[in-house]
This record gives sequence, C-alpha cells and structure tokens, in this order.
Amino acid sequence: MNFGSDNSSGVHPRIMAALAAANDGSAPSYGRDALTEGAAGRLREIFEAPDAAVFLVGTGTGSNALALAQLCPPWGRIFCHETAHIETSESGGPAWMAGGASLALTPGAWGRMTPQALAARIADYPQVDEHDGRNAVLSITNATEWGTVHDAASVAGLCAVARGAGMAVHVDGARFANAVAATGASPAALTWRAGVDALSLGGTKNGCLALEAVVFFDPARAQDFAFRRMRAGHLWSKHRFLAAQALAWLEGGLWLDLARHANAAAAELAAGLRNSGHAPLAPVEANEVFVRLPRAVIARARAAGLRAADWPAAGDDEDRGTIRLVTGWTTTAEEIAALLAVL
Amino acid sequence: MNFGSDNSSGVHPRIMAALAAANDGSAPSYGRDALTEGAAGRLREIFEAPDAAVFLVGTGTGSNALALAQLCPPWGRIFCHETAHIETSESGGPAWMAGGASLALTPGAWGRMTPQALAARIADYPQVDEHDGRNAVLSITNATEWGTVHDAASVAGLCAVARGAGMAVHVDGARFANAVAATGASPAALTWRAGVDALSLGGTKNGCLALEAVVFFDPARAQDFAFRRMRAGHLWSKHRFLAAQALAWLEGGLWLDLARHANAAAAELAAGLRNSGHAPLAPVEANEVFVRLPRAVIARARAAGLRAADWPAAGDDEDRGTIRLVTGWTTTAEEIAALLAVL
Amino acid sequence: MNFGSDNSSGVHPRIMAALAAANDGSAPSYGRDALTEGAAGRLREIFEAPDAAVFLVGTGTGSNALALAQLCPPWGRIFCHETAHIETSESGGPAWMAGGASLALTPGAWGRMTPQALAARIADYPQVDEHDGRNAVLSITNATEWGTVHDAASVAGLCAVARGAGMAVHVDGARFANAVAATGASPAALTWRAGVDALSLGGTKNGCLALEAVVFFDPARAQDFAFRRMRAGHLWSKHRFLAAQALAWLEGGLWLDLARHANAAAAELAAGLRNSGHAPLAPVEANEVFVRLPRAVIARARAAGLRAADWPAAGDDEDRGTIRLVTGWTTTAEEIAALLAVL
Amino acid sequence: MNFGSDNSSGVHPRIMAALAAANDGSAPSYGRDALTEGAAGRLREIFEAPDAAVFLVGTGTGSNALALAQLCPPWGRIFCHETAHIETSESGGPAWMAGGASLALTPGAWGRMTPQALAARIADYPQVDEHDGRNAVLSITNATEWGTVHDAASVAGLCAVARGAGMAVHVDGARFANAVAATGASPAALTWRAGVDALSLGGTKNGCLALEAVVFFDPARAQDFAFRRMRAGHLWSKHRFLAAQALAWLEGGLWLDLARHANAAAAELAAGLRNSGHAPLAPVEANEVFVRLPRAVIARARAAGLRAADWPAAGDDEDRGTIRLVTGWTTTAEEIAALLAVL
Repeated sequence: MNFGSDNSSGVHPRIMAALAAANDGSAPSYGRDALTEGAAGRLREIFEAPDAAVFLVGTGTGSNALALAQLCPPWGRIFCHETAHIETSESGGPAWMAGGASLALTPGAWGRMTPQALAARIADYPQVDEHDGRNAVLSITNATEWGTVHDAASVAGLCAVARGAGMAVHVDGARFANAVAATGASPAALTWRAGVDALSLGGTKNGCLALEAVVFFDPARAQDFAFRRMRAGHLWSKHRFLAAQALAWLEGGLWLDLARHANAAAAELAAGLRNSGHAPLAPVEANEVFVRLPRAVIARARAAGLRAADWPAAGDDEDRGTIRLVTGWTTTAEEIAALLAVL
Repeated sequence: MNFGSDNSSGVHPRIMAALAAANDGSAPSYGRDALTEGAAGRLREIFEAPDAAVFLVGTGTGSNALALAQLCPPWGRIFCHETAHIETSESGGPAWMAGGASLALTPGAWGRMTPQALAARIADYPQVDEHDGRNAVLSITNATEWGTVHDAASVAGLCAVARGAGMAVHVDGARFANAVAATGASPAALTWRAGVDALSLGGTKNGCLALEAVVFFDPARAQDFAFRRMRAGHLWSKHRFLAAQALAWLEGGLWLDLARHANAAAAELAAGLRNSGHAPLAPVEANEVFVRLPRAVIARARAAGLRAADWPAAGDDEDRGTIRLVTGWTTTAEEIAALLAVL
Repeated sequence: MNFGSDNSSGVHPRIMAALAAANDGSAPSYGRDALTEGAAGRLREIFEAPDAAVFLVGTGTGSNALALAQLCPPWGRIFCHETAHIETSESGGPAWMAGGASLALTPGAWGRMTPQALAARIADYPQVDEHDGRNAVLSITNATEWGTVHDAASVAGLCAVARGAGMAVHVDGARFANAVAATGASPAALTWRAGVDALSLGGTKNGCLALEAVVFFDPARAQDFAFRRMRAGHLWSKHRFLAAQALAWLEGGLWLDLARHANAAAAELAAGLRNSGHAPLAPVEANEVFVRLPRAVIARARAAGLRAADWPAAGDDEDRGTIRLVTGWTTTAEEIAALLAVL
Repeated sequence: MNFGSDNSSGVHPRIMAALAAANDGSAPSYGRDALTEGAAGRLREIFEAPDAAVFLVGTGTGSNALALAQLCPPWGRIFCHETAHIETSESGGPAWMAGGASLALTPGAWGRMTPQALAARIADYPQVDEHDGRNAVLSITNATEWGTVHDAASVAGLCAVARGAGMAVHVDGARFANAVAATGASPAALTWRAGVDALSLGGTKNGCLALEAVVFFDPARAQDFAFRRMRAGHLWSKHRFLAAQALAWLEGGLWLDLARHANAAAAELAAGLRNSGHAPLAPVEANEVFVRLPRAVIARARAAGLRAADWPAAGDDEDRGTIRLVTGWTTTAEEIAALLAVL
C-alpha cells in the first residue's frame, strides 16, 4: 500500500527499455545528439509550439529554479500559492538561483489561487520606486500541491492578472500530465494559449527515472538559459539518456495514459473513502487524496503496510490527523482495496 | 574512431542491468532507500574512511560546485591549475555556488601544479585584512585535464602547502578512477591520507549513466551539505537509480577495470603515435593523448571518421594543430589501429 | 510642514561640528583610527556589553542586510512582520546578501508580532529534512513601521519563541532610539538581555548624516563579518567620519534627547488630531502618526505645504485615505500647529 | 610624513563647507533633491554626455562592484590587470555582486595592459558553447594601481580589443582625476569617446568625505541599476550630502586642481628620490611613487614618522624592500623634504 509519493514508484518498462536502447554505441555529449533533437521536436509538436526552446534536466527543483531564475530579476518577486512546492520544499533554491529574489505568498482554497486573491496580493506591493523591488513572475502549480487542478480558463484568468501587472508566468508542472488528463485540455491550452511563458514539465513522478523539461514558448525568453543550466550543473554529459526517457514517455501518449491511470486510482480511492465515511478534505481532481482520519486508524493502517505522509491541516486535533495519499502509474486496484479494507 | 570524449561512450552493461534490477517495486525517495545506504557504505570501505559523508549527484559540475561551495566561504579564493575544468568549462558554477568566491589560477606543466608554484601563487595574496579575501581552498584535478596524474606523494606535497596556509583541499576526480589505476595507489592514499578533505568522484565518464559522488572524509566538513544539494536541485527523488549505478560500478572493482582499460588504450595509442613519428605532447599517464599533427592529417582523419576535439596549444601554427584523443571503457584495438592507419 | 520622513531632516549641528572637528589632519583609513575605537567603546558602554563587536556603516539597508546575512545561512528563513522594512522597502537586499535566504512574513496588529503569531508561523515550517530549509532568524523592528514599540518584555517574549526554535534574533533599530526613549528601558534591556543577538542601530533618521551601527553582542557571532562588510562596499575608507558622527550623536545622550523630541512631537500631533476628530489609526508610541482623513483634506493640506506619504491601509475608501506623519528631531511646535490648523 | 594612502587625508574645506551649507532645512530623501539633480547635471556637462545616467554612492568598492554587476552577466568574465583593485582588494565584491562572475587576470608592466596582452588573454577563453562562460567586460583602472596612467589612445586601444570581442568596458576611476590631470585629456576623451561604457569616478581619495559616482554614458546601459544600488544598501537616504560633496568637488575645477597638486607632489618626490639615488620602480605619472630601499632605511624613515605601505615587488630581497608613497591633495613640500632628508 504505497501511497507515500509518486517519487517512490519505479520507472515504466517502456522507458527503461528506451534507456537500454539508447545505450547503443557512442553519441555526442551535452545534448548534441539525435535523441535530444528528437525529444525537443516531439515536445514542440505536443505543445503546438514550433519555436519553443526546450531544455531537459534531471530534477524538478532544478527545473523550477532554473526556469524562475530565467524569468525573474534578482530584485524580483515571484507570486505563488502559499503551499507551492517552490516555497515549502525546495530549500530556497528558486529565489537563490534568481539572484536573491523573493516569493510573495498568496492564499487560496486547496492550493488554488483566484485572480482576485492574486490581484490583491500584487496590490500589496505598489511599484513606486527602487525600494519596492519588482513584481516579476507568477508561478502556478498545476496540478496543485493539494491535488486540485487549474483548467485552461483558470490558468488564463491568473495569467491575465499577472500580465496586466507586467509579470511573466511560470507553471510548475511536476504533475502537469495529471492536469492535462484531468481537464481534458490540450497542453497548449493549459500553457501558452492561456498566457504562460515557461513550463517546468515533470516526468519523474510519472514513470521516468529522472526527467524534467523546461519549455519556453517564446524562444526569446530563453536567451542564455544554456549558461544557467550549465553552471548549475544541470547539463547532463550523457544527455541522450534524458532524451531517451522523454521520447519513450511521450511516445503514443504514454505520459497521459500513466497520468490517467493515477488520476483514476485517486478517484477510486476517494470514492471508497467517501463510502466508508471518510470524505477527502480537498476536491480529488488529480492523483492526490487528502483525508482526515482518527489517528488510531492511521496507525493501524501503517502497521498494516500503508505508506503515506502526514499532512497537518487546519482542523486536525489530538484525535484526528490528515494524511496525503498519492496514487501513481503503478497503483493497483488491490492496493486501494487493501487500504480501504484496513480503514 | 570515437576519441571525442569519455562522455560520448554509453553505459556499461552491468550498470545498465543494475538500473533495471533496481526498478523492482517501490522504494523510499530522496536517498532513504537501501541501495543508497549500500552505496555509501561501499564507498566508505573502498576509501577506508568509515565515517566519511557520501552524497550522490548526477553531474560533474554539480559535484565540483557543491563540494567547493561547502569548503569555501563567499569571500574565499580557490587555488587551481590554470587549465582546471572548474576554471575553463563550468561557466563559473563553482565560484557562484560558493557565494561569489574566486579562482586563483596556478601554472604548471601539463596540468600539474608543483608545491613551489602553488606556494608562490598563495604568496601573491597576503592575508592582512578584510580587503584580501581568504585563501581558502586548493582544488587538484586528478587525473588532470592534460592526461597526467598526481601520485600520492604529489597530492601530499600540494596538500602540505595548502594546509600550511590554512586551506582545505578538494580533488576534482572526474577521472579519479584513471588516477588510481595509473598510480596503483589506494583511493585512501590519493585522498585523505594525503590531506584531501573532499573528493568529487566521477562515474559518468567511466561507464555510468549519470553518477558522481561527493565524499567528505571528515563528516564534520559536510554539515548542512544536504541543504546545498537540495536547493541546487541535485537531490534526485528516485535516488535509488543513482545508488544502483554506484554499486554496480564499484562491484568487483569494475570501476578500476574500466579505467585500466581506458588507460591501456591510451598507452597503446601513444605508442603507435610515437612509432609513426607523432609523439604525444604531454606524458600519457591516464586516458588522454594530446598530439600535434599537420592540419591536413587531422582533416583527413576526421573525414575518415575520427571524432576528437581541437585542443589549441602553445606551439601550434598555421600548418600544425593539436588534438585531444580520449580513450574510454569502450575503446577497441580496432579503433586505435584504424586511427593509426589513417595517420 | 515636513512630516514626510525623518530622512528628510538634516544633520544635528553638534554632529556636523564633529565632522568638521574630525577633519583635522590625517588619520589611518578603514577604521583603524582612534575615533572609531572610541565610538565602538562608547557603544559597548551604552549597551553594557563590553565584548560586543561593533561595525559602522552608512545606510540602514546595508546595516540590516549585512547583519541578517551574518546570522542566516543561505537556506535559512528570516521571520519578520509582514510590514517589516526588510520585506517592503529594501528591494530584496537582506535575502540576497544572505545567499538567497527567504523571509517568512508574520501578521500582527500595527507592526507588532505576538509570540503566539510568531510560534504559529514557525510551525508552518516543520523542520523535517533538507527540503524544508532552516528556520534561522527572527527580525524584530523596534520602533515598528507603524510607530508602535516593543518594550523589553515584548522583545523577550518574541526572543523566547525564536530561541526555543533554535533561531537567532536581529533587531532592525532604524528607530531604536525612539524605542528606548518611548519605553524607558535600557538599551541592554531591549536587546541582549531580552535575547537579541544583533542590532542594526540607526543614526541617520535621528540627526546623523549617514550612520548606522551593527552590534553583535556576542563577538563570536561576528566572525568574518569584516569580510562581508568589505565586499559589499560598506567599509568606508575615511572611516573616522562615520565614527565622529557616532561619538557626537551618543555624547551626553544626544541620541535619546533627539528621539524624545521626536516622540513628544508625535504625541502632541496625535493629541491635536484627536481633538480635531481625527484619531490616529495606530497607537502613537514613537515618532510616527498614521491618520485617515478625507482625501479632500489631504489635498488641501498638501497644497498648504504638507509633506507626508500616502500610506494605504485597510479601511481606506474612495473618500478617505491614510497618510503617515513622521516627526523628527527638527519638528517644531509651529509645524504641528500649522498642520492642525489646515486640517 | 603621511604617504600611506590618499584615503588618510581629510576633506577639503570647500567640500566640508558645502556639507554644512547643504544642511539647511529639509530636503526630499533618496536622491529626489535639487542638489542631486544639480550634481548629475554637472557631471553630464563635464563629461560632455548630456544623456548619461549618473548615480552617487559612498564607497569605491560599492561603485566598482555595482557598475560591474550591471555590465556583466552572472556567467560572465571580467578582464582586468592582475594588480587591479577589484582583484586584489575588494574581497571578491565585484564578482559576487555580478552573480558569481569571474575575473580573468591580464599581465602588463606597471599596472597597464597592452591591447596585445588583452587580446591574448581573451583568446584563452574561446567562446564555443555554454561551458565557456561569456567574455563580457574589460575593466581598466585609470590611473593604475602602479601610479601609471592610460592616455586616451591607450584607453581607445584597449576598448577596441574589448569591443571587437563583444565586451563592454568599465573604468575603475578611483583616481580618475589624477589621470585627467596627468594626460591633459578631457574626461570624455578618456571615457566614452574612447569606447568606455561605465565609469566609477572616485572623489573620496581626492578631497571628498565619501563620494563616488557611477556614470553610464549610454543611459540604456543603466536600466534597473537603481534596484541594484538600493538592495546593496548604497542608496543614501540623506542623499543631498553626497550631492553636495560632488558639486563642491567639481566646482571651479577643484577636483582637477587637487589632482594636479597630488600629481605634482609625486613628481617632486620622484625627482628627489632620483637625485638621492633611489629611482622609483615604476613611471611616476599620477600620485603614487614606488621605490625600493634598503630595509634599514625604511625602518629609519618610519621611526621618523613616515607612513607608507609595504608593497612587495619582484626583485625585493632580504636587504631591500619596496614601499608605496602616495601623495594627495594635502601633501606639502615640507613633508616631501622631510622624507627626502630622512632617506
């Protein structure tokens, strides 16, 4: 009963096979190989963005931090949800890579900002002179850290506020595939058509070994990004092994199949929880379920093999705590049934 | 005839097999898995350093930059050879990660500093007051960028100078296996026994997919390093796939077998070049051969399939240029023979 | 009617005279002169901290940013009030100088945090592993940005929470003299006796030309601070002219006399406003008065010569806005009367 | 006999008087006052650069570091002489403020680079790809750290090389007035007409209290510089006191009169030294004299009241060492005679 994280799953067999296949003979290093060109091309097609600049890296924090450093001046302010991964879980990486930028936290139910809340937060920082720093970037996580998603209209609404304030827009898409699967929107509709400048697209949580892509829809936005990636140590020398993952992950829509599987597992789990009187806290729209349970029940489930993170939430008390249940491409009906049986 | 870089080789079959084997079921993420513990333990054994702090990352620049940032204060100066990779090829990453540190370049024949040259360079920066910055770290590349190696006595001699000046010592060991194979010294003798504080140990050039280890021989030196690695985006979530590479690479001495193969190939190539009247420029001690050739010959060899980097060197002229020939774990006698035949 | 800022006042005649007097002959540069030693000694006496490390700089942002960089690791989090100057008005300087640290904003009425609010905010950032960054520093502004003050008990209460969480404590004392004058507490009681590690003590707003002091009560906390100050360009070469200001400002308690004058002027202004039906928004405890007025009245007052900053506050509307009235060592009864007459 | 540094001199009476005069009444803070506008205008006139962007700060390191940070990307390389102050004496400030840039040191007799040496050094860093960083800025010190000067042709020759390599040009003009006085060239001829983008113009060593100006001849180069200055803590709140210094220093050519005085004193001192058999090491062109003397003589002179820095130079030995004698606006014929008498 592994609901601890989509990072604890392994690598999809087709992706592992692609790594082995890519290991045939030598290839130019540092991304000058044919697979890398192919992967970038494939991403451009999928995003309907023939000019997009595409960069592959190995980790989500690397992807987020580098993308934000590219969009934000050192004196800039990055607006994000108060539960955004870039705020809670990256040890300050993005602000550091941007040269000492800052994050402006925005509230919102279950991981989602509203345009109104964003506008209010921006208004907290009037732009009078150099004391004020620069309101520079909006970063939206999609799917969010609370397992909800922004559909295309929601992304567009937030982008409109950001652009109206002269800001660029970044999407932390560590679970972007889940958002695409959940909304049915096209990748383009969830990004550049809605006003997004750069996407950190996550593969690692969704079947890859270590693969994230940074996509700048307007290549002018990517100027000198290669230097940033290099000096941060995020340019793989045997780059074909990033590209091979990307190609296999995207091939035949595997990335979305895996995301749909994870989302469906979460929905099934949520339904089961509701039936057993434990309705999830947040809307279950992607691959995460948050549920408040008697602490004794949580302990019993763990004793029976459950892996799940504690996720303290407002309303928890001495007797009842909240846990996060993450489904992934490997989650089975048996795991779900076993968990529901224990609860 | 692929002599372009040891980065253009693929992954050794035993390492690729280990990745596949590691992909069985789920595992805790972020290095809390059993393979990671095993890999760290194995490195401690090999280095006879039971307390060493071991961190795995995916790239050599990440490994160098993070290790140096750990050893060097922001106002510090890192002494290195003027051809050191951290100076020439990392786009300023190490100095940046160290908070704006600087490199003090030291000359020396064929990539090697002498203790005398190092001492003279340190003397260029008297330590009177806060204007002067801090002479903080010595970074030795071993094997060097010119294919030479430092034996244990040479490392110890440099460390003595550095320690006498109150400095810490780092080894850029992107090709450390080649240095061990070339010198016959133990890993411990080439590092902590000689006075080295931290080693960036490279696997990627020597049969791995993406694997480098940062080893701090005194764990007190590693305090808070985990934060550095995390915020720089160098903590892999599916960390077992770093560890699996390490274990397979070290298993049964594979790492040294591969290095010996590469070194032997370079020696064979050098001998052939000498026989054909093209004596290598620098002593061939590891897996790199630098040779000055008529430019017409270089062009002909490339037309025949040679991959090798131009490596401009003092003494080149209009008619004759220098190239770098790198051998690796995949280099075959046929490739060498073919190259010698073309020349 | 200059209530725009205490920065728009000039230099007290005794301080200007001290500058002229210091200009007699030559003196060692970079703080090795006798006046500097004298100023440091005088501050140690006043703070009853014979071992304190004292550094003079020219600006408040320099003082804050350097002090916080000293206390906070790059992966650290600095807790401060959401209206703290380091958050709103320093263009990200402190977080940048600390190597990419972040600020965690804490709410509280009229610029003051409560221990409860601080504890709750710290609890938002559990310290599990390297993803979480480090809860590192509490920064208290005293007097606050809303013209209120923390008395010794209030400082101690906040420090207790911070220290309980393993954090260091900084005071932004741009208006520290006003806080001392307002509370009647000793400088020691408001700082190290309450648990404060470092103070940025402001002279510029209180009669100096350009003078701030960074005081570390435990000199061990100041290790290598001189390098930070130097590389940031905050070590004056003609350092005696910082020290001369400090000595004259402290001489005979001038610093507190000037602060008392400013506080009394604010109290008089507040009383007048109350009498005229315009009660200040925030408690008037130091040298700032915030008042909501009909916008037409504000415009009329400005037309009549009022200088005061707009200070948008919750509750403002189309008809009524809030302004900030800052009194200083130069504020006269005539200015106050003139303003009250206009209103 | 104060030949220790031009920083140990005091403030010229006319400048001190201007500070007192500026202290009349209140003035807008942060550079929005009339004196600041006047000072910027005066500098634009003197440099015949009506569009130049002018920023005042209080220290030379602040001025250099901020100017270079503005011109150099984080992955950039700043070429400078190996004895440049930014390399030897600023504790890494410029490279840090530029986001982790690096300095590429260039040799040259007595503090001067030649175009050939600069071109050779640039050629050390071919610009192939992102590994290589960016050759970004040339920084020329004028007058140099060895008391020599670059005339307009020399500056133009270096600028031509830099511009040919796509680089911007900065002048560290801590002693720029001395260079103008020595060469007789116009300020414009020594800067923008020769190809210079930004000048750090020093007043502190030349009669001011704490005053440096950063001048960008093309205002487009200064975009967002105000944010850099602010967050580094280099925007004075009582900014009129920077501007008042500038105005008095420039008024009636005082800045050049003072520089001429210092230069003449150095020439007189050099002549005296030559007459007494102690010919200066380097050409004496500005206000510094370097002379090798028997160590016993140096000791005797110090015992007699000489203040001068040891300045170790190639050729020193056990018996003879080199000292630096700096003349300033306060140097008197008596001081020179007294020194010569002792020697």
